[in-house]
Amino acid sequence: MKFATYTASGQTHYGAVTDAGMIALETAFPQYPTLLDAVRANDLEALGKAAEGKDVTHKEFQYEMVLPNAPRILCVGVNFPDRNAEYKDGSAQPKYMSLFPRFASGFTGHERNLVRPPENHTLDYEGEVAIVIGKGGRRISQDDAYDHIAALTLCNEGTIRDWVRHAKFNVTQGKNWDNSGSIGPWLVPFTDAKQLDDARIVTRVNGETRQDDVLSRMMFPVRREIEYISTFMTLQPGDIIITGTPTGAGARFDPPKYLKPGDVVEIEVEGIGILRNGIEDEVV
Amino acid sequence: MKFATYTASGQTHYGAVTDAGMIALETAFPQYPTLLDAVRANDLEALGKAAEGKDVTHKEFQYEMVLPNAPRILCVGVNFPDRNAEYKDGSAQPKYMSLFPRFASGFTGHERNLVRPPENHTLDYEGEVAIVIGKGGRRISQDDAYDHIAALTLCNEGTIRDWVRHAKFNVTQGKNWDNSGSIGPWLVPFTDAKQLDDARIVTRVNGETRQDDVLSRMMFPVRREIEYISTFMTLQPGDIIITGTPTGAGARFDPPKYLKPGDVVEIEVEGIGILRNGIEDEVV
Repeated sequence: MKFATYTASGQTHYGAVTDAGMIALETAFPQYPTLLDAVRANDLEALGKAAEGKDVTHKEFQYEMVLPNAPRILCVGVNFPDRNAEYKDGSAQPKYMSLFPRFASGFTGHERNLVRPPENHTLDYEGEVAIVIGKGGRRISQDDAYDHIAALTLCNEGTIRDWVRHAKFNVTQGKNWDNSGSIGPWLVPFTDAKQLDDARIVTRVNGETRQDDVLSRMMFPVRREIEYISTFMTLQPGDIIITGTPTGAGARFDPPKYLKPGDVVEIEVEGIGILRNGIEDEVV
Repeated sequence: MKFATYTASGQTHYGAVTDAGMIALETAFPQYPTLLDAVRANDLEALGKAAEGKDVTHKEFQYEMVLPNAPRILCVGVNFPDRNAEYKDGSAQPKYMSLFPRFASGFTGHERNLVRPPENHTLDYEGEVAIVIGKGGRRISQDDAYDHIAALTLCNEGTIRDWVRHAKFNVTQGKNWDNSGSIGPWLVPFTDAKQLDDARIVTRVNGETRQDDVLSRMMFPVRREIEYISTFMTLQPGDIIITGTPTGAGARFDPPKYLKPGDVVEIEVEGIGILRNGIEDEVV
C-alpha cells in the first residue's frame, strides 16, 4: 500500500495510490485533515484498511510533495565514503555526521518540474531515501531506531550548487530555493528492516545512470542517524530525515553536468518506486 | 502594545501583556487559534484594539516561546565585524551572510530555564533581535524590506558550543538542542524604522554585561537580510529571522564562561524589553 498527497480539480487530497488512480481517504478520516496527521497518529495501517476494495476517486491528478506541511526536515550530508573523499581535505571517516535542515517549501512533488532560478543556473540533483518518523522519542538507541520509522519515500535533494558556498559555514542558501527539490512520489509503510538494509538507490538523468549505490555503504546508517539526531532533539512523528546521497551529482563531473530545462531526473529504489521530475526555468 | 503566548492553569493562551497581567485574546478572535495565525493575517493592530480597556484575565501565568508553532526560523551568523575577526581566518567582510535554520522546538519562553544536557556542558548564550515577517514576498528590495516586518522580539540563541563543531559544515547539531534557547518575552509591533535602526542590544549574565552593541554596526543590516533570504525562498508571514549576535558570548573568554545552573541571562533592547532565563541541568 502506498499513500500520497495530490491535487485534483484545484483541491488537495490524500489517498491510497493504485495503478488505476487515487482512492481519496480524507473524508473517511475527519480526524486526519492531512496525510501528516495520519502519520502523527502512526495510523497508516488504518488508511490501508480503509482503502481496501474501494473504488478509485481520482484518475486525473497531480502529485504534491508527499507531506507538504512537514514541519521539520533534516538532511544528512556527505554520508557515502567517496563523497567524503571528494572534499580532498585528507579527512578520514568523520566522527559525526553533517546535518542541515531544509524547509518543506523547497520541495515539490513527483512529476512536477524543479525550478531553475534566473539568479544562478547550477541546479543539481541528489538522489536519497527519506524516512518519515512515526513514533517520537529522545535518545533512541540504534537497536530501537527502526521502530520509530513509519514510512519511506524518495527525495531529489536538489541544490543550487554555487549558493552552497556563499557562506563561511552552512549550506542553507543553496539548499532552500523554492521548488528546487522534490519528495515523493508516495509513502511506503516501513514494515521490514530489509526495505532499508538491502536498498539500492539509482539516479538517472535523461536515462543515463549518474548515481548507483547501496544504503549499506553509508558511513552513518539510518539507525545511527536516528540515535544521533534524537540525542539533541526529541524526534516527533512527521519528522523527515533525508538519509544521504551517493557520489555522482552533476557537480562531480568535469565540466559539471548541471540540470537544464528539458532534462528529466529519476530516483529509483526497488520497493519504494521512482521519483521523476523535469526542469523548468523560472519566469520572473 | 505587546503580545505574548502563555500558559495558565495548564491551558495555552495568547494575549496582550500589561503591568497587571495578561488580557487573553483568543476567544475574541476565533479565526486566530494561535498568535501565529494573527501574525499570518498581519492583524496585530486588531488585537491591540480588542485589548483596549479590557480587564486582565490572567495574573498568574508562565510565558511560552512567543510563537511556538512558527514553522521557519532562520538565524544570521557572524554578523558583527568583531565576530568575523574572531575566526582569525584573515577574511575581510564576507560577501554573503551565514545562515542556518533552527527549529522552534529548540526555544523556550521568557522566565523559563534553558536546559543544559548531560551529554555536554558548553551551553552558551547569544543575545539577538528577532524579526517576525507579517507580509510575505519573494525578491523583496531593501527599500521595501521594513514593510514586511510585523513585529520584533528578542532571542537568546543558546548553543551547545562543542556540538557546533561536530561536522565538516553546518552548525545544526549545536543549535537545535531541546530548550537550549529562548524567544520572547513578547511581540512588539514594528511601526517605526528607528525601532531597529537605533537599537542597542545588551546581554548580561548574573548582572555582568557580556555583550553590548548597536544593530547599526551589523555587517548585513536587517534590510539586506530580508532582501537576500527572499532571493531564494518566498518569505511567509510568521517566518522569524534571528538577526545576529554581537561579540562577547561565553566561548570568547579564556577560559570560556559557559552557562551553569543558577546563572541568569538577560537580553535587553530598549523599546522591546528584557528576555530573562535561568539555567537548569536536564534530569535524564
